[in-house]
Amino acid sequence: MQSSEIDKLTKIIAKLPALGTRSARRIVLHLLKKKETTLLPLITALQDVADNIKKCPICGNFDTQDICSICRDLSRDVETVCVVQDVADLWAMERVGLYKGQYHVLGGILSALDGITPEDLHIEGLFQRIQTGNIKEVILALPATIDGQITAHYLLNRLKEQSVKVTTLAQGIPMGAELDYMDDGTIQLALSARKEL
Amino acid sequence: MQSSEIDKLTKIIAKLPALGTRSARRIVLHLLKKKETTLLPLITALQDVADNIKKCPICGNFDTQDICSICRDLSRDVETVCVVQDVADLWAMERVGLYKGQYHVLGGILSALDGITPEDLHIEGLFQRIQTGNIKEVILALPATIDGQITAHYLLNRLKEQSVKVTTLAQGIPMGAELDYMDDGTIQLALSARKEL
Repeated sequence: MQSSEIDKLTKIIAKLPALGTRSARRIVLHLLKKKETTLLPLITALQDVADNIKKCPICGNFDTQDICSICRDLSRDVETVCVVQDVADLWAMERVGLYKGQYHVLGGILSALDGITPEDLHIEGLFQRIQTGNIKEVILALPATIDGQITAHYLLNRLKEQSVKVTTLAQGIPMGAELDYMDDGTIQLALSARKEL
Repeated sequence: MQSSEIDKLTKIIAKLPALGTRSARRIVLHLLKKKETTLLPLITALQDVADNIKKCPICGNFDTQDICSICRDLSRDVETVCVVQDVADLWAMERVGLYKGQYHVLGGILSALDGITPEDLHIEGLFQRIQTGNIKEVILALPATIDGQITAHYLLNRLKEQSVKVTTLAQGIPMGAELDYMDDGTIQLALSARKEL
C-alpha cells in the first residue's frame, strides 16, 4: 500500500535508462531514508540543471551558456570538427583530454530499423558550419556498429563535395584486450589493418 | 568539459543504489534531452515526496499521513504483527496482498560485521506495541541469511517472555525453481522440512 506520491516517483525513475521497477523502488526508499543528505540535494541539483543547462546551437553540446564553452574557447583549434553521435561521446572524448578541436553532435545515427533519416539528425548544421567556417578536417568518431558505419559512409559521400579532409578513428584491438576474448570481426579488421613496426 | 551543474547532479545520482558514474551520466543526458517529459516531472515528483512522505511512528512505514494507512486501516487484523527488515519488504508483502495484519519495520538487521546492535534497530517499539496493544502473533519475516536468522533468534528469545505466538515464514524450494540450480543449503532445508502429501 504505497502512497500515490511514492508510486508516481517510482514510475518516473523506473523509466530512466538502465533502471527498472525494482531498482527504482530501491532508489526511492534510499531517498526517503536519506531525505536531508540525498533527496533534497538531488532536487536542488536537478532544478539547477533544468534552469541553467541549454543546448549549444552550434555543436549540440549541453552547457550553461548559450554558446557552449568548447565553441567559445579561443585556444581550441577551429579548423577541426569531430562528429559524434551523442553528447555522451563528446564527454568521453573530453575525458581523454587529447583532442583540442571543435565538436558536432549529430543527436543520433541513421537507422533503417528505427526509421531515422538524415533529416532527423543535426547534419545540415554540420554543412552550414563547413560552408561558413574555416573547417579543414572532419573527424568521424561514430560508433563502430553497422548503423554507425552507414552514417559515416553517408557523411563521407556528402563531404566529398566539400574541400575538407575526412578522417575516422582507428579500429582494432582495444588496449588491455586478450585476443581470445575478441570477436572475429575485430580480429579480422586488426589483422588486415596491421602496421609495420 | 561538463558544466559544474551537470557534474554535481551526476555525482549525486552516481551514489544512488545500483548506480555508478557511467549509468549516472546516461541518466543525466537522458534528463537533459527530455526536459519537459522527464526532468521537470521528476523534480515535481521528488518534491512531492520530500514534502508529503513521513515515517509512521508506529510501524516505520512511509506514508503521507502521520499514522500510515496500514496502521489506520480498521479492517486489518490488529492482533498480528509481521516484523520485516525494511520498508521494501513491507511493500513486497503488500504486493502479494495476502497478508491483512499489521507490520513492524526494524530498519535493518543485527550484524556483527557492520556493528549493528539491537539499540540501532526499531526493536523497543515492537515490545512497546506488544505490551500496550492486543498483539497475539508475531510473524518474523526476516531475510533467510545468517544475519537475518540471528536477528530472528534474538527476537524469538526476547519474545518468549511475552505471551505471544511467534511464527516465521516457511523456507524451502521457491516456486518455479529447478533443484539443479538450488544451493545445497536450500535443498538440505527443504528435505529436512519435507511434508507428507
